[in-house]
Amino acid sequence: MSENSLDAMRHSVAHIMALAVRELYPTTQFGIGPSIENGFYQDVTGVKITEADLPKIERRMREIIAEKLPITESEVTVAEAEKIFANQPFKLELIKEHADKKLTLYTIGDYVDLCKGPHVATTGDVGVFKLTKLAGAYWRGDEKREQMTRIYGVAFETEAELAEYETRLEEAKKRDHRKLGKELDLFCFSPLVGAGLPLFTPRGTALRDALANYSLGLRGAEGFSKVWTPHITKVDLYKKSGHFDKFGEELFMVHSQINGEEFAMKPMNCPHHAQIFASKPRSYKEMPVRYMEATTDYRDEKPGELGGLSRVRSLTQDDSHVFCRQSQIKAEIATLVAIIQKLYTTVGMSKLRARLSYRDDSDKYLGDKSLWEMSQAQIREAAIENKLDYFEAEGEAAFYGPKIDFMAEDAIGREHQVATVQLDFVQPARFELEYTNEEGKPEQPVMIHHATLGSIERFLSVFIEHTAGRFPFWCAPEQVRVLTIGDVAEFTAKVRAFLEGVVLNEPLKYNELRFSIDESKDNLGKKLKRAEELKIPVIILIGPKDAEAGQVTVRTTGGETKVALDALAQHLREQ
Amino acid sequence: MSENSLDAMRHSVAHIMALAVRELYPTTQFGIGPSIENGFYQDVTGVKITEADLPKIERRMREIIAEKLPITESEVTVAEAEKIFANQPFKLELIKEHADKKLTLYTIGDYVDLCKGPHVATTGDVGVFKLTKLAGAYWRGDEKREQMTRIYGVAFETEAELAEYETRLEEAKKRDHRKLGKELDLFCFSPLVGAGLPLFTPRGTALRDALANYSLGLRGAEGFSKVWTPHITKVDLYKKSGHFDKFGEELFMVHSQINGEEFAMKPMNCPHHAQIFASKPRSYKEMPVRYMEATTDYRDEKPGELGGLSRVRSLTQDDSHVFCRQSQIKAEIATLVAIIQKLYTTVGMSKLRARLSYRDDSDKYLGDKSLWEMSQAQIREAAIENKLDYFEAEGEAAFYGPKIDFMAEDAIGREHQVATVQLDFVQPARFELEYTNEEGKPEQPVMIHHATLGSIERFLSVFIEHTAGRFPFWCAPEQVRVLTIGDVAEFTAKVRAFLEGVVLNEPLKYNELRFSIDESKDNLGKKLKRAEELKIPVIILIGPKDAEAGQVTVRTTGGETKVALDALAQHLREQ
Repeated sequence: MSENSLDAMRHSVAHIMALAVRELYPTTQFGIGPSIENGFYQDVTGVKITEADLPKIERRMREIIAEKLPITESEVTVAEAEKIFANQPFKLELIKEHADKKLTLYTIGDYVDLCKGPHVATTGDVGVFKLTKLAGAYWRGDEKREQMTRIYGVAFETEAELAEYETRLEEAKKRDHRKLGKELDLFCFSPLVGAGLPLFTPRGTALRDALANYSLGLRGAEGFSKVWTPHITKVDLYKKSGHFDKFGEELFMVHSQINGEEFAMKPMNCPHHAQIFASKPRSYKEMPVRYMEATTDYRDEKPGELGGLSRVRSLTQDDSHVFCRQSQIKAEIATLVAIIQKLYTTVGMSKLRARLSYRDDSDKYLGDKSLWEMSQAQIREAAIENKLDYFEAEGEAAFYGPKIDFMAEDAIGREHQVATVQLDFVQPARFELEYTNEEGKPEQPVMIHHATLGSIERFLSVFIEHTAGRFPFWCAPEQVRVLTIGDVAEFTAKVRAFLEGVVLNEPLKYNELRFSIDESKDNLGKKLKRAEELKIPVIILIGPKDAEAGQVTVRTTGGETKVALDALAQHLREQ
Repeated sequence: MSENSLDAMRHSVAHIMALAVRELYPTTQFGIGPSIENGFYQDVTGVKITEADLPKIERRMREIIAEKLPITESEVTVAEAEKIFANQPFKLELIKEHADKKLTLYTIGDYVDLCKGPHVATTGDVGVFKLTKLAGAYWRGDEKREQMTRIYGVAFETEAELAEYETRLEEAKKRDHRKLGKELDLFCFSPLVGAGLPLFTPRGTALRDALANYSLGLRGAEGFSKVWTPHITKVDLYKKSGHFDKFGEELFMVHSQINGEEFAMKPMNCPHHAQIFASKPRSYKEMPVRYMEATTDYRDEKPGELGGLSRVRSLTQDDSHVFCRQSQIKAEIATLVAIIQKLYTTVGMSKLRARLSYRDDSDKYLGDKSLWEMSQAQIREAAIENKLDYFEAEGEAAFYGPKIDFMAEDAIGREHQVATVQLDFVQPARFELEYTNEEGKPEQPVMIHHATLGSIERFLSVFIEHTAGRFPFWCAPEQVRVLTIGDVAEFTAKVRAFLEGVVLNEPLKYNELRFSIDESKDNLGKKLKRAEELKIPVIILIGPKDAEAGQVTVRTTGGETKVALDALAQHLREQ
């Protein structure tokens, strides 16, 4: 079934649910009831529904489905609609807002809803569904408006798909990065520091550093240079870049108590990098100029929307900006696409889709429209030339230009927005960036924004769940734990000295082995349990016989094998 | 001459200058006139003095010095003092503030000044001096009070010392890190970003990364683990730590526009690291716990006090905190001292002095006094055991404990405060940190704060001037530049491939060679000039003969030598 038909089907189940709820609870007032990922929801009020009521509603819904009632579309005037929904104040509010347009209604039996559709033909065409949970929701997402009850459900074409979804959900729960983050001692929060501001422990820091260094290393090999910019700036920078008009309200404002000066925390790094480009005269000979920086941006998110590492206030971007000539755009994009493909293959998420994000007709975009068309065409060409699995989406561009957003699929089939490549003609113009061309004349560079991991925190939330905390050997916070059995102190000292010299070089260069040795007097079972709880990929056992033979026992998820000490480095490099 | 006698002498020259000025400009009102490093100043108003007047004042001062007038001390009551200084409103203001104490006067001829002394015996005892410059200064440093003219001078015991000082000044001017920072393209400022917020270019970033990585690497080898903490926090953290009461006004306050939540930018990292320590139960078995982080702190400095990298608003600390048991303090301090000595030897500033900074009797210190005495004794013992060249200073401690502040001497004899090691019993108590001891009972750890470079920005300001921009090979932003002569493209490609594989390991581990190749058609003179302007330590020349012989010409400040391509890596490692 296509994405669109699935949406229509889920949307129809929302209407069927509304019909069932109205029959069971005639006082119900209805908000909206759209399809969402995997299912649908319906906002209701004027009625007290609890989780215990869901089976009853489900039963009635199944009856309606069995009746195979037609779902019919009709068009009405505003006056007619107002009459039909006279007792539905929320619908009336929506009608008022669309007073200049024709209104579409969808009808099932005697249940009529204001709706743009599309829907399936009859209630018999909706596959399988399940009501899943209740949640509170404000009318129109506005905390000052009525609080409603949101009834969630999932819907799929087949029983098998529903079952698969439920297994995936179960699996996702086990992989919850907040739970694993605590169990694996990766990060923590402190009420004294605040929500959305994670602190990374040594283990979490080792993991994030390995990933960030790998990501920057890939670009370093392609001529990108690291720069460093401060985390605050005068707001003048964002007024000039155009960000202030667009996102001014999302900025954390910083205030000097000494002289009242106003600063803002940087929510992105492009204007800062543009200042470095502008700090001296540039010649065409040095183009492209490529800057990168893993730096933390701050965005003022609603406390209610913060959760684990998925949405944080402090987001570290593995950010980069290319300043190049028009003629260099294609090659630069190709390099970035190759880097993205390489990194996501390395982390086991090689299935990538690309969304070509274009502008729409709204006025939220800056810059000349013909330039937009030209750059959107370049983005599309790049997608085709680089053989991307892509789709196009209007209205998803950045305010300064079109972009390619990459979506990666994780181990349990969920898709996550990850890397991005963005073309920008607006900021170079606003910052009056220029370089001297072959004729000694000033020319304006193009900026290409790119982050491979995106926000490292958000990437970690995906990566922890993708791997279920069983990180690849190269980036595991603790790669090896040595467990001693009995009195093997002398040989253990040799093993320690040996491991201290082990350096991995793939995929991350100069990756000094992260290991520890558990020489405690605890029994092996206890030692193993501790190491396994931390999902350490390689366990090395040293017993008296091993010590005698000058070898160790290497245990991984793949099994156990004896390795001579002098072959251990090579053995570890092959993990 | 001792530091104290030099101070007295310089202070006396300030009085002599006041006498001279009063004779030449009888309407003059006097502010303060203390001794300072290398000299003295005197604040005056009610008179228009320009640089052109300085020779005249100097002449009169020399006459006074030749007269060998006695400088006499006397004690007066407040009433008497008010009579004497009836026409000196600034002096009257000072008298009022000391109304509860006896007042000391110092008299030269008929010039009397309110002054605590000490002074030399006669005007004949003041060595050599020179008036250097004028500057504006507010009375008592308060922008809302009278603006005065500050006349600066320098004074030394001998002509030779004055000459040496002037040479050093001349040298310092040439080495000015703001000038070199621009010439060597290390960092820049943008009016859109703001004062005190440097942006580091690729070259500057390579330099700061090399230094920071070396610094953290030394601690990494001693069991320190990297952690990561956000740059903002709820102020609750600083209220609990005690920082808010002490430094609340120096914080940059951060404000959420969404819900009005108040945060502060972190001006230090100890409370953040304490939160990571507190994030899980700790056992004596894992002590000491050692965290380190190169992270940027923000301090709200007065715009007038900002200058280059010496004083910035964004200061990146190579910070660390040890959480240890009482019995482990000594060994931990010894490790840190060894690291400091190693790093400063590596950067060519091995002459270190240590200031043992103790509390005084004021109420600005937190924590139990007996604990202070005990920990000050530990600091002193550590200084003796580690054979430090130390002196003791009361009133220089942090509010939470005593510390060892290290002062390093640079290439032109200036002393800079650099590393610090601080004992802290207060924050562990306030954050209720604990670990379980051998008996299963909770015990409170001690915190040892340490930064080796200190603020990386400030260190760079010192290091750039210390090296005059001729950075040691291992940390130079661009270590090698290859200059081609004629058509040697084929061999140059070989050299490029070769250099791409060169990795240095001393003193910084895994230090990939930073090089570039100038293959432009410019003549050698022009290419050399460009490379020399950037003070690149190693220049490699490739001419047709070199290409034929499979060798290159290596040029350093030490001279020129031919090196075979396959011996080049070793040759570079020996730079």
